[in-house]
Amino acid sequence: MRVPYDTMKTVFRDILERHGFDSDSAETAASVFADNSLDGVYTHGLNRFPRIIKDIDEGAIDPEARAEVLESIGVFERWDGHRGFGPVNAALAIDRAMEIAKEHAVGVVALGNNNHWLRGGTYGLRAAGKGFAAVCWTNTTGNLPPWGGTSPRLGNNPLVIALPRSNGVHFVLDIAMSQFSYGKLELYRLNGRKLPYPGGYDENGKLSDDPAAIERSKRCLPIGYHKGSGLSLALDLLGSVLSKGNSVADISSMERETGLTQVMIAFSPSLIGDEGDDIIAGIIEYMKTSSPAEEGGAIYYPGEHSYQVRQDNLANGIPVIDEVWESVLRL
Amino acid sequence: MRVPYDTMKTVFRDILERHGFDSDSAETAASVFADNSLDGVYTHGLNRFPRIIKDIDEGAIDPEARAEVLESIGVFERWDGHRGFGPVNAALAIDRAMEIAKEHAVGVVALGNNNHWLRGGTYGLRAAGKGFAAVCWTNTTGNLPPWGGTSPRLGNNPLVIALPRSNGVHFVLDIAMSQFSYGKLELYRLNGRKLPYPGGYDENGKLSDDPAAIERSKRCLPIGYHKGSGLSLALDLLGSVLSKGNSVADISSMERETGLTQVMIAFSPSLIGDEGDDIIAGIIEYMKTSSPAEEGGAIYYPGEHSYQVRQDNLANGIPVIDEVWESVLRL
Repeated sequence: MRVPYDTMKTVFRDILERHGFDSDSAETAASVFADNSLDGVYTHGLNRFPRIIKDIDEGAIDPEARAEVLESIGVFERWDGHRGFGPVNAALAIDRAMEIAKEHAVGVVALGNNNHWLRGGTYGLRAAGKGFAAVCWTNTTGNLPPWGGTSPRLGNNPLVIALPRSNGVHFVLDIAMSQFSYGKLELYRLNGRKLPYPGGYDENGKLSDDPAAIERSKRCLPIGYHKGSGLSLALDLLGSVLSKGNSVADISSMERETGLTQVMIAFSPSLIGDEGDDIIAGIIEYMKTSSPAEEGGAIYYPGEHSYQVRQDNLANGIPVIDEVWESVLRL
Repeated sequence: MRVPYDTMKTVFRDILERHGFDSDSAETAASVFADNSLDGVYTHGLNRFPRIIKDIDEGAIDPEARAEVLESIGVFERWDGHRGFGPVNAALAIDRAMEIAKEHAVGVVALGNNNHWLRGGTYGLRAAGKGFAAVCWTNTTGNLPPWGGTSPRLGNNPLVIALPRSNGVHFVLDIAMSQFSYGKLELYRLNGRKLPYPGGYDENGKLSDDPAAIERSKRCLPIGYHKGSGLSLALDLLGSVLSKGNSVADISSMERETGLTQVMIAFSPSLIGDEGDDIIAGIIEYMKTSSPAEEGGAIYYPGEHSYQVRQDNLANGIPVIDEVWESVLRL
């Protein structure tokens, strides 16, 4: 079944309002879920919605809690998310970073004590849609061993870098620091497939492309081996220091993954302008002249594929798993 | 042979002054070279020095050109490096970013039209040594194929993230977006060794740990496969847009690698403070509790190893290749 975007968003909004969201927050949260499904990130859209409603009903997410500023120094603000709904707080934070950037070219908001922001690309797209460039990241619970170690002590800490394009096909990079997520490993295993390249170590400490072996060892690979291990650590260090909030270490000591730290850096449209738009176009055009690795293959930039999915889903409705959609209608 | 740090720096400074540097720039440039060797990054210290003097004598680097500000918007400044000596200009840029950050919490300088900055960690350490956190990156000539392509269209674009520690062992991540540099591939080949994990594709398009095969195909792997490809592109896009300077595409069209773009973001010590110092210590301590992958192994953070080398080299002199040192003494 395919569901029109507006229908999906309205259904989400009504349910969120019935579960304690005020109308503004319900609108923002419904957009986040519906947009993620619209862009083809179904795991962080419709498919995640029932679980979040459950979290709200169980009191793990307080729909009335709203992030607030604790400290303001120059173009920097430090915020407390009060463990409200992650995406609503994160949207407030990137919006505020943009407001600061509008006045001072660059704005930075460090948001501590928030819940999971769902899909990082949401905030990159939100900024790019308004003409801003953005660098954002979040920390997570420990799910990745540091280089040289076997037990998880790092987060996969997704990093987002976004730049606006006048053609609307914004550049949005959204990468976790693990080579494969546990969700991806499971998918490969269920389909009886090997990974396309090593994704971790097996229980004997050998590099492996067997998803089940990596699930057992819990030794996922960071991107770039020691390099991604260092980058994950860097993002947690800088985020935790700026927010004075919870680090991966702190979050890992909790029963559930909550109280996360997120950082939003916005760059004003005045730093980009028409000249910047041309520069972006030129760089992307040059990249696409690389000879394709597979005959007839094309080279895409981050954000391009999800834009195509978005157009298709806008025109034809968002593909849903019927049972999931029907279960949401009953919420 | 081992040469005392002060001796090496004085020798560099005197030579640079004889080759057209004023005394301030000679001091900065000599420090950069000597510090790189001191930290064990010999390729970007003494061993690179003769080549740079040659570049100066041939007019490729103008020792008198100095970066200057073109535009100032809020906490952002756009600079032109006038193709002066890369490390002197880059040091001026990070110093200015720190100056802005001191007043406004965060400062950003985008430096276009510079020369190679040598070792990125230099600017991270420079900021951390003064109590600032920093995020810096540079672009390069095209030396890495984009994901899905076989011909180089991306730079390895080194990224630096640094945080200060009160114990002086600053966190300094300095990572290029290629899994292995061509220098590393050569070293493995000369030693008759395979890479510890795949570093690129061979001429048949198969992932390979054979350094010679990758040197032939010129298909080095980005860190994290498609992820590092996207990150390299993101850094070039954001850097080129902010500097309005040369992108990887522009630099690749030139006969030599010059006119590079560098970005310096500094975060004020007031955003870190004693609490931040404790947060950093706690995160690192937690990471080190991961069970070691090899018996008796230890887990290090970026910057820790080079600190140890630094202490050793300060105490016992910097190890040099005798012929290189003697050739420098004759410059």
